[in-house]
Amino acid sequence: MPRIVQKYGGTSVGDVERIKKVAERIKAAREEGHETVVVLSARAGVTNELIARAKGLCPNPSERELDQLLAIGEQESIALMAMALHGISVPAVSYTGAQAGILTDKVHTMAKIKMVEPRLIERDLAEGRVVIVAGFQGIDDDGQVTTLGRGGSDLTAVALAAALRADRCEIYTDVDGVYTADPRVVKTARKLAEISYDEMLELASSGSKVMQSRSVEFAKKYGVVFEVRSSFNHNPGTLVKEEVAYMERVVVRGIAADKDQAKVIVSNIRDQPGSAAAVFRGLSNANVNVDMIVQNVGRHGVANLTFTVPQADTERAVKALEPVLAAVGGGEVAVHGRIAKLSVVGVGMKTHSGVAATLFQALADVGINIDLISTSEIKISVVIALDRADEAVRAAHAAFGLDKG
Amino acid sequence: MPRIVQKYGGTSVGDVERIKKVAERIKAAREEGHETVVVLSARAGVTNELIARAKGLCPNPSERELDQLLAIGEQESIALMAMALHGISVPAVSYTGAQAGILTDKVHTMAKIKMVEPRLIERDLAEGRVVIVAGFQGIDDDGQVTTLGRGGSDLTAVALAAALRADRCEIYTDVDGVYTADPRVVKTARKLAEISYDEMLELASSGSKVMQSRSVEFAKKYGVVFEVRSSFNHNPGTLVKEEVAYMERVVVRGIAADKDQAKVIVSNIRDQPGSAAAVFRGLSNANVNVDMIVQNVGRHGVANLTFTVPQADTERAVKALEPVLAAVGGGEVAVHGRIAKLSVVGVGMKTHSGVAATLFQALADVGINIDLISTSEIKISVVIALDRADEAVRAAHAAFGLDKG
Repeated sequence: MPRIVQKYGGTSVGDVERIKKVAERIKAAREEGHETVVVLSARAGVTNELIARAKGLCPNPSERELDQLLAIGEQESIALMAMALHGISVPAVSYTGAQAGILTDKVHTMAKIKMVEPRLIERDLAEGRVVIVAGFQGIDDDGQVTTLGRGGSDLTAVALAAALRADRCEIYTDVDGVYTADPRVVKTARKLAEISYDEMLELASSGSKVMQSRSVEFAKKYGVVFEVRSSFNHNPGTLVKEEVAYMERVVVRGIAADKDQAKVIVSNIRDQPGSAAAVFRGLSNANVNVDMIVQNVGRHGVANLTFTVPQADTERAVKALEPVLAAVGGGEVAVHGRIAKLSVVGVGMKTHSGVAATLFQALADVGINIDLISTSEIKISVVIALDRADEAVRAAHAAFGLDKG
Repeated sequence: MPRIVQKYGGTSVGDVERIKKVAERIKAAREEGHETVVVLSARAGVTNELIARAKGLCPNPSERELDQLLAIGEQESIALMAMALHGISVPAVSYTGAQAGILTDKVHTMAKIKMVEPRLIERDLAEGRVVIVAGFQGIDDDGQVTTLGRGGSDLTAVALAAALRADRCEIYTDVDGVYTADPRVVKTARKLAEISYDEMLELASSGSKVMQSRSVEFAKKYGVVFEVRSSFNHNPGTLVKEEVAYMERVVVRGIAADKDQAKVIVSNIRDQPGSAAAVFRGLSNANVNVDMIVQNVGRHGVANLTFTVPQADTERAVKALEPVLAAVGGGEVAVHGRIAKLSVVGVGMKTHSGVAATLFQALADVGINIDLISTSEIKISVVIALDRADEAVRAAHAAFGLDKG
């Protein structure tokens, strides 16, 4: 019997009516003859409510206790969904992360899955039940509740699909699938029928908010093919899978813009071995997420380092740089917040030259200045002014012929 | 180091301010040099909210899923309390029933505790932490969440006190302790400094709502001495313990009135062997809780059976009796709802005669008619009219000299 893992997010279980609608979808999957496993998030908003209550009691709640508290969100979702299924005569059973055998390390609030032991799930599937699993949570060797961090429910779904050797894995979300560009920005953006893991990863790290990178990485590692689709309609979504031969005809798969970045310029530091290393070691120790990096050596033996960080990290970055610059003999820090990072992604560009030239020309044609450039095998990213970002996405989308399909 | 188990109910953890107040109490217990374990209920109201949501999805939710759902109530309380303690610099850790090693049978919504394995709690106490445990819940052999039914959090506290060989067990509630009668009814009612398990049991089953019988039975079985006291003040409460020598001077310990009973009269059933047995087997199969029973045989070989049941059970009782009466050859059923059961309780009456006479005289003196009578070794109960109940309690309280101490 084919086996399916479905994951529904917080808006899909937001109230009784939505829970009932999802229950109908699950029933349909089962009636199509699938062994069905469903992963649920906490209903939208509940996590923030709980965190607010926690902060009312303790400004910096312990991560161990936060996990203990936040885990109840999904536990509510799964029990209610099992009841909704019972209400429409579908046999179903709910499992917390612990009961489902999601074993993690001990890093509270951002645990990593070490192993999945789906013994009970296998038993229930064999006995004809739908199994509803709490996403986002697991248990460590000591029986402590852990949570998996942002995007954790997607990760639970992908990990279960791998452990259960599921035939399909469907990630239901509030978007229809993965588009060639944000359809709110580019009217002619098209939904992709398929995309490779690597392209999805580059899009994820480039501001496309469909999924977190780690779930895609996990899926890639274990060869889990999954589909991103909407829980509000029945349109086919986007299949995410290993790169296949016919994908190579396409050079560029999509365009993403990340508007939550800031640019940090460290200028006039002494151009000597170890200066740049000291700067980035300092940032790393302060958990600052550095993305694009450019160094240029000026006159008089001084250098400038420019890099981008998430806007939320800028304050921490500036603070972390103070002692570093004092240690390497001086330098100044400046932050520019109003930037955007535009990324062009496609496995095809590995073997096609001219992608960079096409992008630069397209931006030049509409008078958009390029500030920083970085490239990977399947991505070119440029930093531009924030207020030109949407225009730049449209120009690039047209230049690569993405609206034509 | 002396060891204490404290239990706080749902009103004590009802909001952030109350949680903070309880945290201060816990801190004080620890600073007095106690190893401190705290059992918490779900905040008042949350259980009803969750049940309402469940019933919106399924009219008769599965008990297994109800347990899975309801357990989140205490899990919220314990995590928040641990954070509140951290906020005032008290090291603390929270445990669900499963983590605390509360092992139960598989009977969902009214599981029995089979064993307590407090290995992790012992470790944390040794390391100086306050341990916060979710009341009302446990885990069965299969790792399924179970709940213990009404009064379950008290039971968790008593069971932990037994397993941890605690020196003290304090049950915090919204009343000051156990009184000779309901102080709202009898102005001169006095708080008892001590009461025996058996007296407490008779009071519990006689409408005194301080605690459920099963926690008292458990405490008696394992010799756990506990104190019932208020979380809203610092008054000493009532110590519940094994009967001791000097208790014998007191004949009657207290008066309770149960106003939630109804009287059922089954009349004109054939007076033959097995009729009464058939009636009560039928009621038992329908889970009707029968309390006082009186049978009188009338003329012409017919009998009348009168018994009391909780008001909530009357409809079920009447329905259960229909097929029974048909089977034994006829009979009529009548229900009288407006009754009260008055109980006089005291271990001293085992060796003192005249208690019944004193009670009957006291009621006769104020013109209150007695309908049914039943007695145990340490209790006399009478059924009277509901609208005379308070007056009867006052008359009995005075007749046994309870206001004099």
